[in-house]
Amino acid sequence: MTSTPIPVAVLGPNGRMGSEACRAVDAAEDLELVARIGRGDDLDAAAQAGAEVVVDLTVPSAAKANVLWALDHGMHAVVGTTGWDEDALAEVREALDRNPRLGVLIAPNFAIGAVLAMRFAEIAARYYESAEIIELHHPAKVDAPSGTARHTAAAIARGRAAGGLGAVPDATETDPLRARGAVVDGVHVHAVRLRGLVAHEEVLFGGVGEQLTLRHDSFDRVSFMPGVLLGIREVASHPGLTLGLDGYLELG
Amino acid sequence: MTSTPIPVAVLGPNGRMGSEACRAVDAAEDLELVARIGRGDDLDAAAQAGAEVVVDLTVPSAAKANVLWALDHGMHAVVGTTGWDEDALAEVREALDRNPRLGVLIAPNFAIGAVLAMRFAEIAARYYESAEIIELHHPAKVDAPSGTARHTAAAIARGRAAGGLGAVPDATETDPLRARGAVVDGVHVHAVRLRGLVAHEEVLFGGVGEQLTLRHDSFDRVSFMPGVLLGIREVASHPGLTLGLDGYLELG
Amino acid sequence: MTSTPIPVAVLGPNGRMGSEACRAVDAAEDLELVARIGRGDDLDAAAQAGAEVVVDLTVPSAAKANVLWALDHGMHAVVGTTGWDEDALAEVREALDRNPRLGVLIAPNFAIGAVLAMRFAEIAARYYESAEIIELHHPAKVDAPSGTARHTAAAIARGRAAGGLGAVPDATETDPLRARGAVVDGVHVHAVRLRGLVAHEEVLFGGVGEQLTLRHDSFDRVSFMPGVLLGIREVASHPGLTLGLDGYLELG
Amino acid sequence: MTSTPIPVAVLGPNGRMGSEACRAVDAAEDLELVARIGRGDDLDAAAQAGAEVVVDLTVPSAAKANVLWALDHGMHAVVGTTGWDEDALAEVREALDRNPRLGVLIAPNFAIGAVLAMRFAEIAARYYESAEIIELHHPAKVDAPSGTARHTAAAIARGRAAGGLGAVPDATETDPLRARGAVVDGVHVHAVRLRGLVAHEEVLFGGVGEQLTLRHDSFDRVSFMPGVLLGIREVASHPGLTLGLDGYLELG
Repeated sequence: MTSTPIPVAVLGPNGRMGSEACRAVDAAEDLELVARIGRGDDLDAAAQAGAEVVVDLTVPSAAKANVLWALDHGMHAVVGTTGWDEDALAEVREALDRNPRLGVLIAPNFAIGAVLAMRFAEIAARYYESAEIIELHHPAKVDAPSGTARHTAAAIARGRAAGGLGAVPDATETDPLRARGAVVDGVHVHAVRLRGLVAHEEVLFGGVGEQLTLRHDSFDRVSFMPGVLLGIREVASHPGLTLGLDGYLELG
Repeated sequence: MTSTPIPVAVLGPNGRMGSEACRAVDAAEDLELVARIGRGDDLDAAAQAGAEVVVDLTVPSAAKANVLWALDHGMHAVVGTTGWDEDALAEVREALDRNPRLGVLIAPNFAIGAVLAMRFAEIAARYYESAEIIELHHPAKVDAPSGTARHTAAAIARGRAAGGLGAVPDATETDPLRARGAVVDGVHVHAVRLRGLVAHEEVLFGGVGEQLTLRHDSFDRVSFMPGVLLGIREVASHPGLTLGLDGYLELG
Repeated sequence: MTSTPIPVAVLGPNGRMGSEACRAVDAAEDLELVARIGRGDDLDAAAQAGAEVVVDLTVPSAAKANVLWALDHGMHAVVGTTGWDEDALAEVREALDRNPRLGVLIAPNFAIGAVLAMRFAEIAARYYESAEIIELHHPAKVDAPSGTARHTAAAIARGRAAGGLGAVPDATETDPLRARGAVVDGVHVHAVRLRGLVAHEEVLFGGVGEQLTLRHDSFDRVSFMPGVLLGIREVASHPGLTLGLDGYLELG
Repeated sequence: MTSTPIPVAVLGPNGRMGSEACRAVDAAEDLELVARIGRGDDLDAAAQAGAEVVVDLTVPSAAKANVLWALDHGMHAVVGTTGWDEDALAEVREALDRNPRLGVLIAPNFAIGAVLAMRFAEIAARYYESAEIIELHHPAKVDAPSGTARHTAAAIARGRAAGGLGAVPDATETDPLRARGAVVDGVHVHAVRLRGLVAHEEVLFGGVGEQLTLRHDSFDRVSFMPGVLLGIREVASHPGLTLGLDGYLELG
């Protein structure tokens, strides 16, 4: 493969995700980092450098304008910021209608493993009487349960509904200290906080005489980079708006 | 749902799988066990009892004749015996051509969880640099590695090929006692034998900064019954020959 | 070893634990089941049969009288019932004072693995900043968290105190659904209920850059039998009253 | 506690372990890093700086001379280098005879969790019919199985011997690809190599109806530092030569 590398501009190159992304793009032979646009820098530098894909790892308040700017200048966009509401998405869709060749990927989670685990959980859920989630994180995390765990619970609930399953079996009568954890969309979710951990999730499915377990461990932020690179490589062949990295994965 | 129960005949009702299957069919409200045909019994009893689905849990040498008989008498067949060669499958296909309304499911593994794990492993394999398998069984097992582990290794190899991955990274230079285990289709497979266990499999995927783990535990033979019941319920709506329970699962 | 088998009487031979105990004693070459005393049977049958050790697997209301009777007739006692208060224990100690050669073991948990896990947890606790417990059981269990989990939390608390550790680190500010579980003696305890499981416990210890995990799985009631047999074999060499199977284990 | 901090000199401060150790000593309130002695630096700087404890994280060829020098200058020594033979240890013991107040700790493994897991494995081994080890490391490791796994196997063998246990049960007849792994002191050891991992060990014990699992994960070299600090703090109260960090742990 001696094709020309894809020219990439990274917006927000000094944040934790952004600096990893710059390193990862730099290290990839089929990609070329042509611009790093920090806060206060002029976006035009990305255009002048010939970027074809813009990676936005800035903050929610800036992301929409960045994406619209990229589309107006003929560039695809890969976006890692969260907090997009329907109005903002509608504006992006309009801009894409004017540039039907271009693609935008908005992915709240670039960890391919977490995305796979969530998808597998939805598929498996329809076949198991019981399902519970344990998420485990470092003790500096301020909220519980994690967003990934809540999304996984929703995916399990969709799977159970598709399989015609009712409530999970649970004969608990006495639980004065709330050991059974949170209930999200009918699924019990437990949050562990442990020094030494980063971000981990375990999904347990139980049936008569058997158990199926899915576990994803993120030991380091660098684990998000394969997802970012996949997004950059694939965005040109997925015109229009794609929500979620799973839209780019071969899950069939 | 007040529909008539599906009338079922079980061939091989006295074996370990067969006796569980009889119990499971008996306990299912939408199924009715109308005939139990042991060795030496006349297959015609199944026809006279009005069976619509024949479940064959006999031995490889008997299974083909049983299936052909079932098709000739207008019954679907769900088969758990292994050892089918291409000639035998061709005969079944011919019989099905004469009875295009009928279905046959031949499933070497009725554990839904094991089938799901194998499918998930194939999907995940394309996204991870490293993959290894640990299978764990009771210490009375005479062969290693297990058939399920070998099939899973093949599935991983297919996934890696689809993802364009080469050999797994492994710098091992010194391993005089062969601690790195078996290599099946390029995937390292480790076999653990431990008192107290039944049949378990763990598939480990590793990438930079992350790990994805799939684990299936069979604690009891009864865990195969949901797969058998699924086969019985679905065989009529899957005319023709289906190899493997995954053909009946919603994996998309 | 051609020594004479120890003659054993089982009280409560028809309960779930009792019937397993009879099978286990029967199968052990160094033990002989000489009497099975059910509800309403005369205890004297144990004496007439020459029992040297009485195994009480009856109910709390009957256990004290059985033990006192055994001591008065010169027999050691191994007891699996719970619910002993200080008064009852004092009576047993008095009877032992009159028979200083005899031994009594009262063990609320005969699972050697669970006893080991609890002891290891206490030792490890002094060296880890974080500790949490996940207990997992079948969904028919009516109380949460399990007694074993509560005892393990107490053991961890003792270990942390001995190590001079304060509260576990936990920055959680927002947990509206109580995903962080129960807090027992300062230790978070999570209770999972899953079809297919029996009784399982996982103890997680975390420090900077590392994790230590202890897990015990009880797949079957038969797992209590090695503890019962150990008690029977060792009670004669442990005169006086012993509370807890750990008193008979080599843990040093 | 307003006691004076212990003055510490680190030998080999520029290696991977040494630089972590300098950081850890610096960060500990009860310790003071008074000297960093690199290759070619004069050891006398440690004496002049008033060090009471010397931490040797150099190379095997230099360690013995460093320890003898420290003892001659009235300092305790904490040593992380391996490769000590009996002659070298004898010289250290002689020097200690001349300075009976001083202590030396030689520890091949400063990970408290790994030391605990090994000790727990030896205790548990006497109570379980089956035991196997799985060690998991990054794929750049050149030897298999790991030294820790071999030491753990030896500990299990000691435990089994103390418990009067014979060979582990294993009916394997057919294993053409060597999936059953290495056999070390009668214990099967499996080595997994996976991108994303650092250093991990899992010890599995199995009995009828139950399993006990011990697992230790080292995610980062920093996990060795609590063991180094423990050694520094405790060496003065353990005069003479101590081999292995377990000599300083409260394991009873």
